[in-house]
Amino acid sequence: MTDTATRPETPAVADPRLGEALKVALDGPYHPLRQKARDTLTAAEILRDPTLSVDEARAWTLAALQHLATKGYGNTGFALPGQAADPATVVTGFEALAHGDLSLVIKVGVQYGLWGGAIEGLGTDEQVSRWLPDILSARHLGCFAMTEMGHGSDVASIETTLTYDPETDEIVVDSPTPTATKTYIGNAAAHGTSAAVFGQLWVDGTCHGVHCVVVPFRTVVDGTGQDLPGCTSGDNGHKGGLLGIDNGTLRFDHVRVPRANLLSRYGGIGDDGSYSSPISSPGKRFFTMLGTLVRGRVCVGAGAAIAGRRALSIATRYALRRAQFPGPDGSGETLLLDYRWHQRRLLPGIAKAYAFGFANNDLIHLLARSRSEEVDDLFQRSLESRAAGLKAAQSRWANDIVQVCREACGGAGFMTENGLTLLRSDVDIFATFEGDNTVLMQLVARGLLTGYQETWTGLDRRETMTKTADLVARMVLERTAGRGTVDALVARARRVSNEASILDRGWQVLMFDERERHVLESLARRYQAAMRVEKAQRFAAVNELQDHLLTLARVHTDRLVLGSFVAGIEACEDPAAKRVLNTLCDLYVIDNLEGDRAWFIEHGFMTQARSKSLTKTLNRLCAELRPEALALVEGLGVPAEWLGSRMLED
Amino acid sequence: MTDTATRPETPAVADPRLGEALKVALDGPYHPLRQKARDTLTAAEILRDPTLSVDEARAWTLAALQHLATKGYGNTGFALPGQAADPATVVTGFEALAHGDLSLVIKVGVQYGLWGGAIEGLGTDEQVSRWLPDILSARHLGCFAMTEMGHGSDVASIETTLTYDPETDEIVVDSPTPTATKTYIGNAAAHGTSAAVFGQLWVDGTCHGVHCVVVPFRTVVDGTGQDLPGCTSGDNGHKGGLLGIDNGTLRFDHVRVPRANLLSRYGGIGDDGSYSSPISSPGKRFFTMLGTLVRGRVCVGAGAAIAGRRALSIATRYALRRAQFPGPDGSGETLLLDYRWHQRRLLPGIAKAYAFGFANNDLIHLLARSRSEEVDDLFQRSLESRAAGLKAAQSRWANDIVQVCREACGGAGFMTENGLTLLRSDVDIFATFEGDNTVLMQLVARGLLTGYQETWTGLDRRETMTKTADLVARMVLERTAGRGTVDALVARARRVSNEASILDRGWQVLMFDERERHVLESLARRYQAAMRVEKAQRFAAVNELQDHLLTLARVHTDRLVLGSFVAGIEACEDPAAKRVLNTLCDLYVIDNLEGDRAWFIEHGFMTQARSKSLTKTLNRLCAELRPEALALVEGLGVPAEWLGSRMLED
Repeated sequence: MTDTATRPETPAVADPRLGEALKVALDGPYHPLRQKARDTLTAAEILRDPTLSVDEARAWTLAALQHLATKGYGNTGFALPGQAADPATVVTGFEALAHGDLSLVIKVGVQYGLWGGAIEGLGTDEQVSRWLPDILSARHLGCFAMTEMGHGSDVASIETTLTYDPETDEIVVDSPTPTATKTYIGNAAAHGTSAAVFGQLWVDGTCHGVHCVVVPFRTVVDGTGQDLPGCTSGDNGHKGGLLGIDNGTLRFDHVRVPRANLLSRYGGIGDDGSYSSPISSPGKRFFTMLGTLVRGRVCVGAGAAIAGRRALSIATRYALRRAQFPGPDGSGETLLLDYRWHQRRLLPGIAKAYAFGFANNDLIHLLARSRSEEVDDLFQRSLESRAAGLKAAQSRWANDIVQVCREACGGAGFMTENGLTLLRSDVDIFATFEGDNTVLMQLVARGLLTGYQETWTGLDRRETMTKTADLVARMVLERTAGRGTVDALVARARRVSNEASILDRGWQVLMFDERERHVLESLARRYQAAMRVEKAQRFAAVNELQDHLLTLARVHTDRLVLGSFVAGIEACEDPAAKRVLNTLCDLYVIDNLEGDRAWFIEHGFMTQARSKSLTKTLNRLCAELRPEALALVEGLGVPAEWLGSRMLED
Repeated sequence: MTDTATRPETPAVADPRLGEALKVALDGPYHPLRQKARDTLTAAEILRDPTLSVDEARAWTLAALQHLATKGYGNTGFALPGQAADPATVVTGFEALAHGDLSLVIKVGVQYGLWGGAIEGLGTDEQVSRWLPDILSARHLGCFAMTEMGHGSDVASIETTLTYDPETDEIVVDSPTPTATKTYIGNAAAHGTSAAVFGQLWVDGTCHGVHCVVVPFRTVVDGTGQDLPGCTSGDNGHKGGLLGIDNGTLRFDHVRVPRANLLSRYGGIGDDGSYSSPISSPGKRFFTMLGTLVRGRVCVGAGAAIAGRRALSIATRYALRRAQFPGPDGSGETLLLDYRWHQRRLLPGIAKAYAFGFANNDLIHLLARSRSEEVDDLFQRSLESRAAGLKAAQSRWANDIVQVCREACGGAGFMTENGLTLLRSDVDIFATFEGDNTVLMQLVARGLLTGYQETWTGLDRRETMTKTADLVARMVLERTAGRGTVDALVARARRVSNEASILDRGWQVLMFDERERHVLESLARRYQAAMRVEKAQRFAAVNELQDHLLTLARVHTDRLVLGSFVAGIEACEDPAAKRVLNTLCDLYVIDNLEGDRAWFIEHGFMTQARSKSLTKTLNRLCAELRPEALALVEGLGVPAEWLGSRMLED
């Protein structure tokens, strides 16, 4: 076997059914839901004029939210008493709108996912019945007021106080300092009338940690409302993107609300004025409450990936019609996509878009399971970790690939009417909100370290190594689908890894597994050492590991994504689509390994020769996929009518 | 010697004079010019309200251009008959304005650099006298109309025709097809009244290639002007950034201008109606005319770098005041810049900003020499190549680092009032205009290949290797300053390279040199093979080398930049600043080598162990520079009053 094995030749004329078959495969179990959105939403409903001012954009976004509510977009799939949650509907609904204006989809996210989600996730059945129906009909617009000026990522340190006053049976909401001001809050500047306000709950002189209370703060919805007494709203004003979202600030000066407004599913105050909670550990209670944010992270990651798909659809279609420079033989001009570097810019991005698509399908599946059956702590932690890792990976990728696409369209890419620049500005903040990527990745890595330590405590070095092999096996098993296939592939690759072709899927999976295992093991050793240093030096010692933590989160997420890709291919029933998906998977893997090849050589997993062959193979795979380029972007599932790109219209 | 040698400890309390000393060193020979700008321009003159609409932004930008013209900003240093060009004044003037609004600086670039520059560079003395004074006073606003809808990077293929009519002694300017429409032309949508129009010159049935003619096309300057007969202007409308620039389209329907409007320095039509040119080869004439664009590329590269400096100044200052999360010992919150990853995000960027700064100083010096003395073809080619490479490298870097800075400021970074988002949108197009980066990098690489082939033709392999050693020596000598130092360093490193510390400057320079040499040699071999294949297959064969070409351009430019950095340190007279610059240079180099370490291992220039030590050293250098962070950004020379960042004001 050689490192650049020959593959079956691609047909000279592209198969017109290929794009459709790829789309069905990538949609996976959610094809009916996703196709329905493509068939029923129109470009006019979801795309806005990208040149609107802040005020105009806010007004359009509110109107679009309200219009879509009447059609059941964005507001279906939520749990009401007597009606089970349907997370797949929520997430695919969010995805559908993410094909259009990103302000609109974030407005949906703020109104239903965050404001509604706080009630749904943290409220009692009575509270859900009381508030959620009007929220889902977009009659009662509101805010998710967690972030404070002084405390973004560090939620546990927020300063807002929620103090129970037994005299009046009320909760007193207060912002004791300027840094306690809530900020960047969607719906706060103009449209919201109530907020789910997070703060430290004090009952009878004891602080019970972060809780959430519903606070009415403004009279009317339409942007002309007045602040209620004690409430002060502000406007964050112009932003780098998402101009349709009215982000603002909220301050509370001893504002009183009834005790019944304290969202009490995980902790509340009884008629006797005493605090009680079904979760005795304050730490566990805090993380359980934060755990209800997981659906938002799934949505934001998936939405960012859709933005990437959209940009790739525009840039690839443009590269298939735009010619530049005659060939060296003086013959007709060359299509942009026939240039090697243009292929290298766009095609690995398309492969990654597919990879993330399959990974999101699995994530939605896990999310749905967590709502429909009793799952244990390990399952929940693993779901949260996967959602955090994929949110970070996809929003990073979306930012990068949208910029690549903009540049790949040259000057035309910079003209707003061609659809890329608004996408670029709007997707930017996806790297920061719903959890800053750097912080999320550290959460992922710390979770892996914890799991590792729980398994490993008290083992000596030799036992550790045996256990590690088990762990790798378990990580493989943990995959949501395609287990048998992956296991067989890896088992075979383990026997032949030295000679295996770099296009052997088993070898590829093994490399992703081994990389994660090695990075985790070495980090765990360093972490244990860091925790043994004196307390005064410990911050410095742990801080030294931060880049290592981020690497672990990245390679862990890469491994999960590849597992989903392999499973997705396994589930594909169309032979032509399956063949192309296999090549895309190769491209995804080789691009990933090529980018990290220094690590693989440094750690003895690859020879220099094999490493060099990766670049060659990367180029060859791009050339091989070039004839299918149109079908590849059709498979990404963004309807051509939704692209809103003037340069593709003539 | 170890790979991570200990350096002198940095003082616990930062030296207040360090920032000033670094600034003086980085300004280099242009310190007086640059400091004058800092002392005389005010924030109000150069910063605009970032929330303006397209019309408001255009009006502000025009007014600011006109105001600054009266103060001599942007419009000084141009060549007039009897007045020598002063490129250093032009470039540093452009840089000064690039600290403010990027629309303003590009308006300046369009009006003086491109429109004025076309006259200055391509016109006869008489034509310069006729037009340039009113252009430099901003009374006569105009356009540089080169790019066409069908032809951006490929200037030689533009379709506009300039046909000499001997009957009337006029030039007939015509856009024969829709793709001949000029587009993305600054000043075309509203403010310009004339354009320097590029097209194919036809005289008596013979095409003499691309020439330029001055065409009046609109009545008045103020945005209410009417198109003149036969001229049709259009508006490119809203863009991803640079909203203050009125980019538009221009079409000509057999528009007649006097023969005297043909810019004739490099080719004109005599009174007898015949064409003549001081440059007989049409190819050489074309490239000589394009060569006048070099100053624009120097300006755009430098301007992009200033945008990067500005973003780094904002993000670093924010990271020195913003705390988040208590340390693991529960003590006070930690400043963002004390986190390792935050250091890794920002400090290598600062090192690169310094590296580019020194490289720009050298480039300005070369540009000034090319205008003040007779330089040969090799000098001119080397100047153009350096300008192209640095434009591509700096605009790529600026795009990346501004985004990094935005994200490093979290949600605050996304608020327009904090100064990063406008920078992000405005700097985007720097990667495309004044030569698309991908195209420019291929020019750089092709130039190197040509030079290599001129030297090498007819040599056998053994001779080639000897010659190559000479070439490397020549490349080192080619440095504009610090030759002795660099030579001595490299000579020493050659003797000890296996044992040399990675902080040994000679070893570092050697690695940059060897990388370029190796990439060039292997590309030359592949290129020769590609040129031997049959003509029908040749495009494919050359296309296969495109990624290799881009690598060559990158590593070549990296080598030039390092040479300038070394020379800049050599010239620094302040011991404290010199010490810090040395550490910054280490950080620049190690960051560069770390990013490319796979290549170095693959090609036998580094062991795995040395490669691994790069990451460790990178982290350590960041930690070492952390206490000087404020001085480092002060040294970047962006006055705090010009930052326009609300979050830094409290």
